[in-house]
Amino acid sequence: MSNEYISMWKDLGLNLESHDALLSVLGNAYTDIYLAQKDRPEGMGYFDFVMSEVHGLRIKELLDEKKQGRKIIGSYCVFVPEEIVLAANATLVGLCSGADFAMEEVEKYLPRNTCALIKSAFGFKLGQVCPYLEGADMVVGENTCDGKKKAYETLGSLIDNLYVMDLPQMKSVNGRELLRSEYDRFKTAVEKLTGVAITFDSLKTAIQTVNAKRSALHRLYTLRNNDPAPISGLDALLANQVSFYDNPVRFTQSLHKICDELETRIEEKKGVMQEKTPRILLSGCPMAVPNWKLPWIVETSGAVIVGEESCVGERGTRNLTDDSGDTIDALMDAVTDRYFQVDCAIFTPNSDRLENIMQMAQAYNADGVIHYGLQFCQPYLMESIPVEKMLEDKDIPCLRIETDYGMEDAGQLKTRVEAFIELLKG
Amino acid sequence: MSNEYISMWKDLGLNLESHDALLSVLGNAYTDIYLAQKDRPEGMGYFDFVMSEVHGLRIKELLDEKKQGRKIIGSYCVFVPEEIVLAANATLVGLCSGADFAMEEVEKYLPRNTCALIKSAFGFKLGQVCPYLEGADMVVGENTCDGKKKAYETLGSLIDNLYVMDLPQMKSVNGRELLRSEYDRFKTAVEKLTGVAITFDSLKTAIQTVNAKRSALHRLYTLRNNDPAPISGLDALLANQVSFYDNPVRFTQSLHKICDELETRIEEKKGVMQEKTPRILLSGCPMAVPNWKLPWIVETSGAVIVGEESCVGERGTRNLTDDSGDTIDALMDAVTDRYFQVDCAIFTPNSDRLENIMQMAQAYNADGVIHYGLQFCQPYLMESIPVEKMLEDKDIPCLRIETDYGMEDAGQLKTRVEAFIELLKG
Repeated sequence: MSNEYISMWKDLGLNLESHDALLSVLGNAYTDIYLAQKDRPEGMGYFDFVMSEVHGLRIKELLDEKKQGRKIIGSYCVFVPEEIVLAANATLVGLCSGADFAMEEVEKYLPRNTCALIKSAFGFKLGQVCPYLEGADMVVGENTCDGKKKAYETLGSLIDNLYVMDLPQMKSVNGRELLRSEYDRFKTAVEKLTGVAITFDSLKTAIQTVNAKRSALHRLYTLRNNDPAPISGLDALLANQVSFYDNPVRFTQSLHKICDELETRIEEKKGVMQEKTPRILLSGCPMAVPNWKLPWIVETSGAVIVGEESCVGERGTRNLTDDSGDTIDALMDAVTDRYFQVDCAIFTPNSDRLENIMQMAQAYNADGVIHYGLQFCQPYLMESIPVEKMLEDKDIPCLRIETDYGMEDAGQLKTRVEAFIELLKG
Repeated sequence: MSNEYISMWKDLGLNLESHDALLSVLGNAYTDIYLAQKDRPEGMGYFDFVMSEVHGLRIKELLDEKKQGRKIIGSYCVFVPEEIVLAANATLVGLCSGADFAMEEVEKYLPRNTCALIKSAFGFKLGQVCPYLEGADMVVGENTCDGKKKAYETLGSLIDNLYVMDLPQMKSVNGRELLRSEYDRFKTAVEKLTGVAITFDSLKTAIQTVNAKRSALHRLYTLRNNDPAPISGLDALLANQVSFYDNPVRFTQSLHKICDELETRIEEKKGVMQEKTPRILLSGCPMAVPNWKLPWIVETSGAVIVGEESCVGERGTRNLTDDSGDTIDALMDAVTDRYFQVDCAIFTPNSDRLENIMQMAQAYNADGVIHYGLQFCQPYLMESIPVEKMLEDKDIPCLRIETDYGMEDAGQLKTRVEAFIELLKG
């Protein structure tokens, strides 16, 4: 580890000992799970590099941006519009929440029966191991699920730069109005933070930048409908995960390079697994770095993941923002309309999600769906029952998994996943 | 059991065998918990009668009202304004949700890790044992917690008269507007159901009827600040519970009679327990009939409950609705303002609740607070941590309980409650 990074982490207020332990676990997991894969696209080398420097070079870049007066905004949710952040010449980063850390300390602040993602966010704060959180000029919480909504009240006592965004629960006229007014309020807050007034031109350019990132991911998704699958689900998930951290323009370029390579692979009928390998659509809760448990189990059990119906996946990137408006007001309306389509389980009713799951299962020729529910995540666990019912009605096998970030149930999960994959072969 | 009731239940579509089993369990529990109490106010005989006829005479009354064209509206939440229902010449009743029933069937529709209250509502439907639900012309769901919000999507497939009310998550200008527009929408729906146009006069009268009920409960609450406590917490809880089922005018009269009796008791220094018995404030999740487990444990362990900070208690009845408006619009605003003050844990932030708990603890001379959290009820379980912290900062002992409707943990709870009461004596 270079001395430069160590002093950078120290200046950010990280607990160096805990942070070293975290990086060591992260590095080992990456080696065992990612680098152990066979026949990976060469372009994934870029993501390997990004991941190896996720707390290093990327943090240095962000701190260099800060030195030049650029603000860093952290977020835990896909409802925070990157368009608005970029338009004010600021940078949006996803905050750490994919691993258990400092759990004993966390349970002084949150009930034990809180979902792993929320506990993880607290663990990274209380353990002082998240350079993104410590480096952020503003942290945005949002009233999605009960767990997050109430947790932000407590998080607000641990950090002094928390901004809470309200969200509607229904896709009604009132709901649309609330979202628009909350995005206006967020725009004003970001302008105040940055001292940069968002203009028509800056917002339009930002929309185009974010759309380009989403389009590159859409290109990746579409290429995965081939058999043999040209890229593993683990690697595709990684691309989605890195999209929350990386510079958006560089990310887009890098992902297109991989897609070029995947197109060549497809022409050559070359894949990461054999043709006719059972194809799985993952659906449900988001998987933040380094939450690779379930995809790793699936892809070491004889199946390949061909799509992620998740916030870290197509729920987060599905729709583009219309950039054709003639005024800043029209563009803000377009931003609102784009996010108002997100089929998060916090909305009621949320039948769009059922349709999107079916559409994805068909588009990617999935043989079965594994629904991934984080324990105590009520919205997704409750929706998993109608999801399973719909899929069964359409003769698409579905396996409902409920788990957390621990490895205690890995053996049991593997047994269930293997049995499910056998069923798909039958 | 009279044949008249049996044919009434049959006509309602109840499962007679299951319903008999339920009534038998309910009757035994009432005998063991309520009738076993010593030195009860004589006036409680009225509530004993109401409870003995809760699925009998009261249902017959409601069905007689229906025969005369009056509509019955069922609700699961204190955010459904009885003022609007009464103003349209309809009757509001609370729906059954205080006991486990048909759990195996319920878990086909809801995740196992769903709170007991929601599962109970489904159990009463799936087991066909709730005459209130089967007799209702409209059932109102409301977007409070994630669990209920998502559960209503499924309940809507089991009953054909579900109306869902949206609710805000923040007490903002937007939130107030949403509540007002949802109450307007509900008013229109109730008018359509009943064929009765709500007028200024009918709404004003309805507000006064509901205010009178609340005022009678306020009188009861205030009398409990005496030592010795003139009424048990169990009996006071029963009064709160019955307020959801009974005719509001009759309830108000009956409760005032009890309050008259309690005033005499107070003059005579007569109580249900000795002077200086440790005094407990219960705070947290609602306790619907027949969920008497925790109060029963507390009051058979040497303490008396002197207040309920709960929807079935002061959260549900705290504020009166201003009836001084000159127009129907002003009255609807007053209804909205009244309910917008309810300090439900679904709101963020919800600091009013902390203040109300402190105010109640002081007003009723509570020696300690027991926070009652239903397992998997995220909003109240998450708030219980700051509640405990606030109380500890004010040197008021607090015991956080997390439980469900089962009796498996009764022994363990009793041990914890007894230890807490010993602490209060020390």
